[in-house]
Amino acid sequence: MGRWVIIAPERAERPSAFLRPAPEHNGGVCPFCPGNESMTPPEVLSRRDENGWTLRVVPNRYPALRTEIQMVREGAGMFDSMAGVGAHEVVIETRDHRATLADQPVEQIESVLRAWQERMVDLSRDIRLKSLIAFKNHGGPAGATLFHGHSQLIALPFIPETLDAEVRAARRHFDEKERCVFCDVVAQESHDKERVVLESDGAVVLSPWAARSPFELWILPRAHRSSYESASGQQLHAIGDALRTVLRKVDVALEKPAFNLFLHTMPLREAPNDFYHWHLELKPVLTQQAGFEWASGCYINPTPPEEAASFLRQTEVFS
Amino acid sequence: MGRWVIIAPERAERPSAFLRPAPEHNGGVCPFCPGNESMTPPEVLSRRDENGWTLRVVPNRYPALRTEIQMVREGAGMFDSMAGVGAHEVVIETRDHRATLADQPVEQIESVLRAWQERMVDLSRDIRLKSLIAFKNHGGPAGATLFHGHSQLIALPFIPETLDAEVRAARRHFDEKERCVFCDVVAQESHDKERVVLESDGAVVLSPWAARSPFELWILPRAHRSSYESASGQQLHAIGDALRTVLRKVDVALEKPAFNLFLHTMPLREAPNDFYHWHLELKPVLTQQAGFEWASGCYINPTPPEEAASFLRQTEVFS
Repeated sequence: MGRWVIIAPERAERPSAFLRPAPEHNGGVCPFCPGNESMTPPEVLSRRDENGWTLRVVPNRYPALRTEIQMVREGAGMFDSMAGVGAHEVVIETRDHRATLADQPVEQIESVLRAWQERMVDLSRDIRLKSLIAFKNHGGPAGATLFHGHSQLIALPFIPETLDAEVRAARRHFDEKERCVFCDVVAQESHDKERVVLESDGAVVLSPWAARSPFELWILPRAHRSSYESASGQQLHAIGDALRTVLRKVDVALEKPAFNLFLHTMPLREAPNDFYHWHLELKPVLTQQAGFEWASGCYINPTPPEEAASFLRQTEVFS
Repeated sequence: MGRWVIIAPERAERPSAFLRPAPEHNGGVCPFCPGNESMTPPEVLSRRDENGWTLRVVPNRYPALRTEIQMVREGAGMFDSMAGVGAHEVVIETRDHRATLADQPVEQIESVLRAWQERMVDLSRDIRLKSLIAFKNHGGPAGATLFHGHSQLIALPFIPETLDAEVRAARRHFDEKERCVFCDVVAQESHDKERVVLESDGAVVLSPWAARSPFELWILPRAHRSSYESASGQQLHAIGDALRTVLRKVDVALEKPAFNLFLHTMPLREAPNDFYHWHLELKPVLTQQAGFEWASGCYINPTPPEEAASFLRQTEVFS
């Protein structure tokens, strides 16, 4: 039905492949802590200060996809398969086992955003890879299996459904109006204020019209850039700063919920364009996704975005 | 971005609107048990035997949508809204608080399937309603908030994304080959056997090529009918029988997991067609959906469908 699925039997070997309790401060030895570097595959990127590393990027030990295999596409009757070529990397965001992303100074958050960008530029050299998803699962209900702060990068040999649909919708809007739909959203929301959580010169955080889940938030750079690879240092600083403030507001307002954070950006190696606008999406995990959502692709959200935004605007945090 | 979301603030009043523990045998009074009929809105359908009711359909007490409001569509700058016209009903599948669907005799399962059909025919008379989603959440991890066996019907004033995409994909296959894609799947899988769990004269249960999650299963009637409203009594009997066996196999093989069950059928009031084929989809909840799936619309499945099917084929159950 025009849908690709990654069948990754190796991931069933993970201790936690099937449902399990949350990973809060797991008792065992943490493979992401300083001193345990040999528990991960060798790093592909690291940042250091005088006390040792401050950030590491390593291949996932239980990868959903791998680069070191041959790309083969074949048919099986009416179906198609391709070898699982791709990359699956883990960004270890800090050496401090207990520090969450919200706890970090803005420089460390920027360092994470820059690591995503650097790996994305590097992975885009492999022309078999068509798109990259950067995401973070924080807390057991959000799908995290390890407590130590980390995010993940998955590079895919195809363009996944959701990204494809978003890019097509943005292109339709541009074809009709000759304006970027995200720039239009930023302009309208900045003017209305109702759904805005915070604004700076470089970034806007808002709860979108038609938010799919309670407190869904978008973090958008004001300046138009279609892809994350081409984001400037200034943009990443503005986004890092806004992300830090909103994560701290969410922690206070919603009592440190589990959350998912995603990067939305153009497929790899596309020329800059006027219709798409990279951004981050943040989804606190407050409700259980149930049958209706899976069956319909339609979401029921008990919290109007205006209420979520107003609540977070009024939540005070100290830097 | 071409997406409708249901904003339903009333549902936040539910005791369990935000994350909570599983509802196994909840201690309080069960609103779905005999004697507590006054705790639900008045029934719109019921079946009875000499001991009282055996099945009831009632409007949801915390509806995501309602029929008794006016259908209004309006713009808000670049956005659109419409009043939440629709229906949200609950099918109380049994009077026995502890009996799961798998525990029921086949006649009772058929009675549930017929109740879905009867309500669907009735709701389709309201021309504002464009589609209907019938689904069941069993167990806390699947999103159930009450233990007593029940399923839900949501009738929508639009055609949701997932259904629309599936119908369009089936139409494309038909345009190209002049055959129903689901009939093609049934034919190929019945011949290959590898992904088939069980077969009867009237139904086939298989784990689909590109299954999105471990042990995802489809339950298909062999005879082509595009919409559930027009399914024959014989078809519903065959599907009920197959559903009962596969639920019992899943209970034994996977230790009574939580699951979601969905009906896939054409939008309401469409003339019968040759390209779409109604069916049920069953998804045991064994893994946590995490950031990657939400961000990409692409799924990582650690269990190949051939292994799932083989495991369930070999699982013995007694009727």
